[in-house]
Amino acid sequence: MKLASYARDSWTFSGNGTVADGLIELRSAIDGHVVAVASRGGVDVAEMVRYARSTGGPNIRRLTFRERADMLRALAAYLNEKKPSLYDLSFETGATRGDNFFDIDGGIGTLFSYASRGRREMPDERFALDGPLEPLSKGGTFVGRHVMTPLYGVAVHVNAFNFPCWGMLEKLSPAILAGMPVIVKPATPTAYVAHAVFRCIVESGILPAGSVQMIVGSVGDLLDHLNGQDVISFTGSADTSLLLRNHAVVAQNSVRFIAERDSLNAAVLGKDARPGTPEFDLFIREVAREMTVKCGQKCTAIRRALVPAEFLEPAEAALVERLGQVVVGNPRLESVRMGALAGQPQRSEVRARIAELSSEAVVAYGDPEHCTVTGADDQHGAFLSPILLRCENPQNATKVHGVEAFGPVATLMPYEDTEDAIAIARRGSGSLVASVYSYDDAIANELILGMAPYHGRIIVIDRDCAKESTGHGSPLPPLVHGGPGRAGGGEELGGLRGVFHYMQRTALQGSPERLSSVTRCWLKGAPEKETGVHPFRRSFDELEVGETIHTPPRTVSLDDIEHFARFTGDQFYAHMDEEAAKANPFFPGRVAHGYLILSFAAGLFVDPAVGPVLANYGLDGLRFLKPVSPGDEIRVRLTVKQKTPRKPEYGEVRWDVEVTNRDGEVVATYDLLTMNARAHASA
Amino acid sequence: MKLASYARDSWTFSGNGTVADGLIELRSAIDGHVVAVASRGGVDVAEMVRYARSTGGPNIRRLTFRERADMLRALAAYLNEKKPSLYDLSFETGATRGDNFFDIDGGIGTLFSYASRGRREMPDERFALDGPLEPLSKGGTFVGRHVMTPLYGVAVHVNAFNFPCWGMLEKLSPAILAGMPVIVKPATPTAYVAHAVFRCIVESGILPAGSVQMIVGSVGDLLDHLNGQDVISFTGSADTSLLLRNHAVVAQNSVRFIAERDSLNAAVLGKDARPGTPEFDLFIREVAREMTVKCGQKCTAIRRALVPAEFLEPAEAALVERLGQVVVGNPRLESVRMGALAGQPQRSEVRARIAELSSEAVVAYGDPEHCTVTGADDQHGAFLSPILLRCENPQNATKVHGVEAFGPVATLMPYEDTEDAIAIARRGSGSLVASVYSYDDAIANELILGMAPYHGRIIVIDRDCAKESTGHGSPLPPLVHGGPGRAGGGEELGGLRGVFHYMQRTALQGSPERLSSVTRCWLKGAPEKETGVHPFRRSFDELEVGETIHTPPRTVSLDDIEHFARFTGDQFYAHMDEEAAKANPFFPGRVAHGYLILSFAAGLFVDPAVGPVLANYGLDGLRFLKPVSPGDEIRVRLTVKQKTPRKPEYGEVRWDVEVTNRDGEVVATYDLLTMNARAHASA
Repeated sequence: MKLASYARDSWTFSGNGTVADGLIELRSAIDGHVVAVASRGGVDVAEMVRYARSTGGPNIRRLTFRERADMLRALAAYLNEKKPSLYDLSFETGATRGDNFFDIDGGIGTLFSYASRGRREMPDERFALDGPLEPLSKGGTFVGRHVMTPLYGVAVHVNAFNFPCWGMLEKLSPAILAGMPVIVKPATPTAYVAHAVFRCIVESGILPAGSVQMIVGSVGDLLDHLNGQDVISFTGSADTSLLLRNHAVVAQNSVRFIAERDSLNAAVLGKDARPGTPEFDLFIREVAREMTVKCGQKCTAIRRALVPAEFLEPAEAALVERLGQVVVGNPRLESVRMGALAGQPQRSEVRARIAELSSEAVVAYGDPEHCTVTGADDQHGAFLSPILLRCENPQNATKVHGVEAFGPVATLMPYEDTEDAIAIARRGSGSLVASVYSYDDAIANELILGMAPYHGRIIVIDRDCAKESTGHGSPLPPLVHGGPGRAGGGEELGGLRGVFHYMQRTALQGSPERLSSVTRCWLKGAPEKETGVHPFRRSFDELEVGETIHTPPRTVSLDDIEHFARFTGDQFYAHMDEEAAKANPFFPGRVAHGYLILSFAAGLFVDPAVGPVLANYGLDGLRFLKPVSPGDEIRVRLTVKQKTPRKPEYGEVRWDVEVTNRDGEVVATYDLLTMNARAHASA
Repeated sequence: MKLASYARDSWTFSGNGTVADGLIELRSAIDGHVVAVASRGGVDVAEMVRYARSTGGPNIRRLTFRERADMLRALAAYLNEKKPSLYDLSFETGATRGDNFFDIDGGIGTLFSYASRGRREMPDERFALDGPLEPLSKGGTFVGRHVMTPLYGVAVHVNAFNFPCWGMLEKLSPAILAGMPVIVKPATPTAYVAHAVFRCIVESGILPAGSVQMIVGSVGDLLDHLNGQDVISFTGSADTSLLLRNHAVVAQNSVRFIAERDSLNAAVLGKDARPGTPEFDLFIREVAREMTVKCGQKCTAIRRALVPAEFLEPAEAALVERLGQVVVGNPRLESVRMGALAGQPQRSEVRARIAELSSEAVVAYGDPEHCTVTGADDQHGAFLSPILLRCENPQNATKVHGVEAFGPVATLMPYEDTEDAIAIARRGSGSLVASVYSYDDAIANELILGMAPYHGRIIVIDRDCAKESTGHGSPLPPLVHGGPGRAGGGEELGGLRGVFHYMQRTALQGSPERLSSVTRCWLKGAPEKETGVHPFRRSFDELEVGETIHTPPRTVSLDDIEHFARFTGDQFYAHMDEEAAKANPFFPGRVAHGYLILSFAAGLFVDPAVGPVLANYGLDGLRFLKPVSPGDEIRVRLTVKQKTPRKPEYGEVRWDVEVTNRDGEVVATYDLLTMNARAHASA
């Protein structure tokens, strides 16, 4: 298998395909055979950047978020069909079936997740609104609002070798949804899996021309061609991260830089979780699992297992017992629990790190140099036993908090009290994730809030959630992934937060009319369009943002209030007892029920006949601003605020509703939501 | 005046106070006399960092957002009283009365703004929630939510010389509100103003020990002591920015870095805004104003004025005429419109940049070497005439888009069509702000969306908003300030966004019970506490998050529906016409009004007697999930979701309300908001 780069919508393999010509042989982690050969580079990266800017960018920005979300969904469905062949290839990286689930299924799941978030949470537009209207002037003629637009550059994704599929797709999904073309640089050791997934993406023909390209081998002088409209998202080692971050052009041009690098993640057994409790068992299970899943090659794996000093012995015994059951070997075998490291160079690296850690910790389980291997050959594969270390004095140690052995390696360490546990966890200088095992409110809350500033994610695993928990090591698309300090200070995923990394936030200022017009969301103070036709008689497609009716007034009588109270059963004293109501700090005396005002308002603006309005399905931001006293008059302004297509047959209309009294004071304001037929209903 | 550093809560002046001893003389911009002397440094910055961590951090994190907001408000009120003496000192920087308004009043206004946002938008807690609940499992036992906690380090604020007061306070306000101690490094040329403001802050005694420190002179090896829990926020030149950003420790430890640097901001006159239109006049006024306010020493000033080629001549003529009326001189005089640059070194620098720009542009107004000065001496002051340049061919030019002359200097340039104008504006490679002058929907919207990816802020100035507009050059606390690319890629202000830069976002995962407990916000699935007392009978302080009642059921009859329809006037066909309702895609036949359900729900859960509940003041996120047919039964669960103190006498209770039918299906869900007395009402 020859891994070509994909540049300017065609496959480009430079060199004649020999090692002498500068090719790299990518070897199986199981038996060392050459799975693929990769070029060291040589593709014209400047041309790739230009092509992304000139072709990919315009093609993808032309689409709305909705259309991009639909592409992601189609792509996810397409890749879903290709899973068997991807699994097969992925075994060669040393991954087991379970590991494949994280990498392949997890990657496709992220595509699905962003597809559905794009449909549900983003407008059918090429820009998104961020936050509410900001009033900027007393008279209301000058207002502000933030808008997000896709950056005009290219997203450069530099991925790690451990999750060739997930790592690519978790970066690709939000970038594509945002509207940016992508250049992917997979890590070389497992590039054949990334390449296979990428080939499927290209074959699917779903993404527009220029929207994705791939560099196999060196990125050459790619960084020299970037500017402030570009984004680099990097996952890998601190050293490489620094090279990219401090590159002269990246710094000078403020190229956006997102990094996810080393992390010495902690798992903390609570003081309450003594041996015999469910949380103790969950801790043992999770530490052993995180050590062995993906052969410990996870940036989110547990590296430091913190236990109350009094539970150190039983915890170590339980872990040793559990690790003793782990079958290491050929990941294709059902009986095998842990496969191989990505390759022999990785194994040498991990062994060197274990040696470093051994100056502060002793080996409690496993032999770094020998491993019983099932169904494969230890000589040619990259197998390594799980290694549990024990560090007796973590407060005085430094390496166990700073040296990441990127394999099935963790260090067990005792702590005195909860404050001590927090201090030790923080010694990681910033991590991607920490996990807590406790069923005690005070202990769990202290651990969470104490560790939070140093962590991008904290998971509490206890008897209530264990069954459904996705575990310590799994980043999920709705939640942010990244951590401060040593972990790189970057953030990815987290729902739309991850999409906004590829967009520019711009504060817009101007008149309500101008801002309504450009954002297609009506703001109070902008013109009210009156068509002469009741808006309930106009279909979703006919309705225009700003379309308004003003209703005639209706008087709210004391009889109405009493009648409503009896009918609904809501006899709250503010409606029924003049004396008591007067004593209330908010009311001048008896007042109408809020829901009476809401109901009368609907009575005033609803056009009852069959028509395009299908259903009232909710309201947002209702505030009762002024009481309505018996004898007061109310009237309603109803304005089309925003339109969002939902299905081919109907869409959501958000109405701006304002109920005013005889003096024109606003008594209630809210957004009403209806579903409206796209064309006229023919009932 | 000797400017001392403020380290570890005491004033520290190193050296014996002579220039020979390494002191810097700070001279008046008006007449060159020595206003103050500043030490070159020499304070123990490592100790300052340690003190911020050991004393300032704990002191400020101990407070809730509410308490910090109250401090900001008190501080703003205190500084408000000191304005006259601050104005007086500020004149020496060359600032006019109007300029003082931006710097002194603007700075204090930012404190007030963050104080009120802190009170209104943040909880009375030491952490904030970010975004909604994220469901993570089918069974609902495993959920996620994001929480923001203050970083455990120090915020280092490196300020520019042009706005010594505003620049300090706009960075200080969000950091203090977030809960971080601050070390301020003012720019030396105008440090005496920053120092005077800072001295007031110290004298006020409002902020806790260790929460603010100031370095006058060099920051020494400050950066060597920072880590991933620290933040640097920098405003100034690109060169200094790069030095800080690429410092080995900053890069290695992922110290958060926010930069605001060079910006060649554009003002664009729309194709529609021909001479004689209000927008043409507004453009002329704004360009002239931005050139002269603060003597053009504003990172947000208009540097590039783009006009349709056909209006180049009249625009130039109008600008020349307007600039001719600008009286330059002693800023203390009422008649003076423009004061001096911050000092003679700044003037030399601006003249050098004008010379550079002159290779691509000709001087249309002003003489860089000579200036008529009123009430002051051109020899000893730092006066400079406004300089208008004209560049005929901006598409082929480079310097006019890249060289920032930080003084009263702008370049006028013609463009062909709107697309051309956008392309020229983008040549700035990322700017803080652009302004648009147009009264045409299509033109204004094209300019806004075309320039948005390259700008942090865009303001449209037209006849509708001009009177209330705060203008091109004014960053406002509710809106983000910062820009991509050349402008540094940073973001400040923008309401709570600016606060969150000083906090860590952490994704929490666990059971609803655990997340409810730690966030003090009840989530569905967490335990429902039943006290045996109706929650409407318990005061704000007595109520506990999670307290719940379940009401008995009530049947909704066809009579109820018809009665409600007649009473309210809402005779929508889905409630009244079985045939038509059946044809509707959402309904099985006639259904109850949404507001009938809401009203009956209130009738079920309201406890009518006088008590702690003062008022229903709104609801959020109401969704009708399932229709209620005649004969269906509804019942309600009412749970205390969140409590927010508002006044000494009462607080806001947010209730989680769920209306279910006989089959236990949710028919409606919403958050109800009430105001509740802190103690029992004694009505």
